[in-house]
Amino acid sequence: MSGPSRYPWQAPLGALPGPGGTSFRVWAPACDSVSVVHGEDATQLARAGLGVWEGTAPVGAGQDYMFELDGGKRLPDPCSRHQPQGLRGPSRVFDATAYDWRDDGFRARSLDQSVIYELHVGTFTAAGTLDGAIGELERLARLGITAIELMPLAEGPGERGWGYDGVYISSTHHAYGGPAALQRLVDAAHAHGLAVILDVVYNHVGASGAPALEAFGPYFTDRYQTFWGAAINYDDAGCDGVREWVAQSAEGWIRDFHCDGLRLDAIHAIYDQSARHIVAEVAERVHALNPRALVIAESGLNDPRVIRPFALGGFDCDAQWADDFHHALRTLLTGERDGYYADFGTVGDLAKAYRRPFVHDGQYSPYRQRRFGAPAADRPPEQFVIFSQNHDQVGNRAFGDRMPFELRPLAAFCVLLAPFTVLLFMGEEYGEEAPFQFFTDHIDPEIAEATREGRRREFASFAAFAEQVPDPQDPATFRDSMLTRRSHPDYEALYADLLRWRWRLSGEAECVGLDENERWLHLRRGEHQLICNFARQPHTLPVADARLLFATDSCEVVGEEVRVAALAGALLGPGDSRA
Amino acid sequence: MSGPSRYPWQAPLGALPGPGGTSFRVWAPACDSVSVVHGEDATQLARAGLGVWEGTAPVGAGQDYMFELDGGKRLPDPCSRHQPQGLRGPSRVFDATAYDWRDDGFRARSLDQSVIYELHVGTFTAAGTLDGAIGELERLARLGITAIELMPLAEGPGERGWGYDGVYISSTHHAYGGPAALQRLVDAAHAHGLAVILDVVYNHVGASGAPALEAFGPYFTDRYQTFWGAAINYDDAGCDGVREWVAQSAEGWIRDFHCDGLRLDAIHAIYDQSARHIVAEVAERVHALNPRALVIAESGLNDPRVIRPFALGGFDCDAQWADDFHHALRTLLTGERDGYYADFGTVGDLAKAYRRPFVHDGQYSPYRQRRFGAPAADRPPEQFVIFSQNHDQVGNRAFGDRMPFELRPLAAFCVLLAPFTVLLFMGEEYGEEAPFQFFTDHIDPEIAEATREGRRREFASFAAFAEQVPDPQDPATFRDSMLTRRSHPDYEALYADLLRWRWRLSGEAECVGLDENERWLHLRRGEHQLICNFARQPHTLPVADARLLFATDSCEVVGEEVRVAALAGALLGPGDSRA
Repeated sequence: MSGPSRYPWQAPLGALPGPGGTSFRVWAPACDSVSVVHGEDATQLARAGLGVWEGTAPVGAGQDYMFELDGGKRLPDPCSRHQPQGLRGPSRVFDATAYDWRDDGFRARSLDQSVIYELHVGTFTAAGTLDGAIGELERLARLGITAIELMPLAEGPGERGWGYDGVYISSTHHAYGGPAALQRLVDAAHAHGLAVILDVVYNHVGASGAPALEAFGPYFTDRYQTFWGAAINYDDAGCDGVREWVAQSAEGWIRDFHCDGLRLDAIHAIYDQSARHIVAEVAERVHALNPRALVIAESGLNDPRVIRPFALGGFDCDAQWADDFHHALRTLLTGERDGYYADFGTVGDLAKAYRRPFVHDGQYSPYRQRRFGAPAADRPPEQFVIFSQNHDQVGNRAFGDRMPFELRPLAAFCVLLAPFTVLLFMGEEYGEEAPFQFFTDHIDPEIAEATREGRRREFASFAAFAEQVPDPQDPATFRDSMLTRRSHPDYEALYADLLRWRWRLSGEAECVGLDENERWLHLRRGEHQLICNFARQPHTLPVADARLLFATDSCEVVGEEVRVAALAGALLGPGDSRA
Repeated sequence: MSGPSRYPWQAPLGALPGPGGTSFRVWAPACDSVSVVHGEDATQLARAGLGVWEGTAPVGAGQDYMFELDGGKRLPDPCSRHQPQGLRGPSRVFDATAYDWRDDGFRARSLDQSVIYELHVGTFTAAGTLDGAIGELERLARLGITAIELMPLAEGPGERGWGYDGVYISSTHHAYGGPAALQRLVDAAHAHGLAVILDVVYNHVGASGAPALEAFGPYFTDRYQTFWGAAINYDDAGCDGVREWVAQSAEGWIRDFHCDGLRLDAIHAIYDQSARHIVAEVAERVHALNPRALVIAESGLNDPRVIRPFALGGFDCDAQWADDFHHALRTLLTGERDGYYADFGTVGDLAKAYRRPFVHDGQYSPYRQRRFGAPAADRPPEQFVIFSQNHDQVGNRAFGDRMPFELRPLAAFCVLLAPFTVLLFMGEEYGEEAPFQFFTDHIDPEIAEATREGRRREFASFAAFAEQVPDPQDPATFRDSMLTRRSHPDYEALYADLLRWRWRLSGEAECVGLDENERWLHLRRGEHQLICNFARQPHTLPVADARLLFATDSCEVVGEEVRVAALAGALLGPGDSRA
């Protein structure tokens, strides 16, 4: 971050404590004067050009401050690192360089060697804090997890929530322990050989905080509409300060918190017509700091451009979430056909998803009422992240219920032995029973009510239980989502086994055969064969010269046939004649 | 267009006359029944799936029809080829195959051999028709023009207008003579060795016609906002029918009218998040029909992606308009700094534009209040279309006045000897005096008044003459824009000379030197040198071993110096020692 900067917003934004006080820099083109208010005092900032204000104030790390705009409104720093009293309280100066890192020897694995574990800090442990999560790391590492992915940490409204209502995108939520706690967690994870990926939201901010950003400058644009509110201004007048707010935030997680990657939430809602798309810019700047750092997009576009390199016109993300694989798998397992599941449900869909997970790669989607996606055959399998559970696919259900128990072994088999990058959702690995419900803690009564009402309306078509949908604002909805830690030993063994087998398989998955009526799928990966039986009864099918290596339920090879139990998966290796 | 189609909208839309009547196909997902009404009769169409209706009716070429939706509203065909009674009259069946083409031997030149001539059919000749334009072709061909570019022909409101309010994008305006006249003009152009490029508008439709399209299906989306009205739906539910409406229209101009290229209006207002952008799809489908056909984008994005090939993530347009070159040149010539001219005005800007015309290739634009563009060094010069006049740069001025006479020779010198593809605006080549004003013929009183008022407001800051801004609805504003054909022999000779010299120059333009105070620019192209003097007084500068080949005003080489007249350009070749 040192060296001359070409434009004022390219210099480090936010509060940087130093020996002679803290240097403040804030992009506030909407203002005619900006002061930093600390204790009883205020220090006037000076114009640095193009809407940037800067100055040094006698404030030290750990002390609180706010910006006073035009001698009136006092607001937190858009680049705040810490909001100890919540969304509307003062910002606190954080000395990111004070931590004594012990992770020199750590080196994150590449994607093709990674298994990611998504967790929500608030419900992961009884403490609900970053420090509380440290105690679980050893277990995860032993199981074969290589990276934890933290749901968003940025300060948003209240004391609890999923994190997608965050406003101060560079802060670590006070309820989780603040930024110092994140440094401790990352360091501890690295000590256990675990990488840390952070979920970051650059497509919107929580409505509770939008006015506090708008007071500084044009953070939003009305050129585009997003599902969650005003679109962030990435390509309209004044966008450069917003782009730097985002890009410097991304850099900060990598540089100051030693994060090994970012998961960019819903990039399909990041509208940017610039010659350099902000997602590409974030990827470029993250990779410039650490070429091994991962930038993983959640993209609902089915567009391989997202994960293509710059030179091919891509955004250069290392990977992207591939929901289609989940939908193809889930509809086969459960028979659900509601909403976006309507487009899935055949064994053929899953077979296609095993080649590349874009089931929609150009054909018509009845749910979307349009042709959708493009083929991604040029992208290697590890660039797709697949899962049978994640926060959305569990939590966005009316009751946040996890996959039914009897379906989980086959689901895990299908995911963990696929050639793609795998993501597990916390608790999945030991058969957690607790739901992961949708919970919020909105501090604005109207937003709270709108959220409650929206949730009810979303499930209104299921009239029978619409009234029973948990109230997201009720603290009990949050408490009920805490992991129980009641372990089912069978699942622990299953996941441990599958994670071991996973690394013995190699090569892409090819469909050997399938039957839509009898509901089985037969795949080959190199010299291994996978047989997935989605039927409610056992199935026998011919296999030549094969040996049973592993199965999720009673399966056996007899002569030239394999018998696979109902809702089971079987892994076969070369038979005795070749073994 | 024959052979099996995968989706119903991929079959040919519109009216196709054949021996057993005319086959009709219309995408109308908003309707529960569709009939084709002809004379006193009506023929019910049948569902072909995904919102498409089709059937054959006893109607012949030259007969009129309308679609009746849900037994009520009667509307023209969205794919109409001819609206003989205007925007809201019936559509007429056009037999595109009836014309007896004579252009077998014609082969359009490649871009690097092209000089384009933009014309507005209604004001180009006294007749104001396509047939009327035929008489001018020989003169243009003799001058060295290789392609004419027709401002949009699609049927829009009323009897006159620039064409950017078109609605029936596959039709040829009745006031210009309808589709048969276009075939005659293209054939005549080809006979004179001239290619024909057609300006097409895919970013919005004239507000007068939007409801008549919406009655059929979701032609528009509220996901995006455009400057001119509702954004066309290229990526929201139901977009495929809209995309086919556009893509088949583009194909039709190439296939049925033998057009040699399309100029896509304002693609920066075509919003499309699909994995295949509609502009790329149009380019692909046009090139599939005729690999030599040109797709030229008007793009305000300064994004080289537009003209990169598919394989590099591009839209595969052959070329794009490069307004920055114009602005850099015009501000030097006139000293104007209003509006978007504020970002230009130095000799350095023009020197940069001579390398690649994106003057903004990543730096901050005070006018746009953002960083803008990306470098395009990887794209060859012929992919950029430059001009010193065009319909916008003349017509969007308050009074539509052309460039002042004393500036035109240097402007023409700068444009015609540049390495980019050149576009002239009708009349420019002989020193036309008539303005090209903004004229409309809106048939809806509110739209007429809004247009009038908008025009007044646009120039309100020039309070002195805001009230004198011509009324776009007044027929006199149109009449005053007709070419006078009063030729200034000096200009004719100048253009003829420059067009001859143009083809003797080769290689990219490199800046040898410039002086911001004395306002001269010295360029080299291969063994030729260009000296442009933007000052109001003569300038002498040193040149080694050079010979004067051509100048727009009195210039001479004496010894090791060249003296260039005020506001003049001089072309130098190698001196005697090398010649």
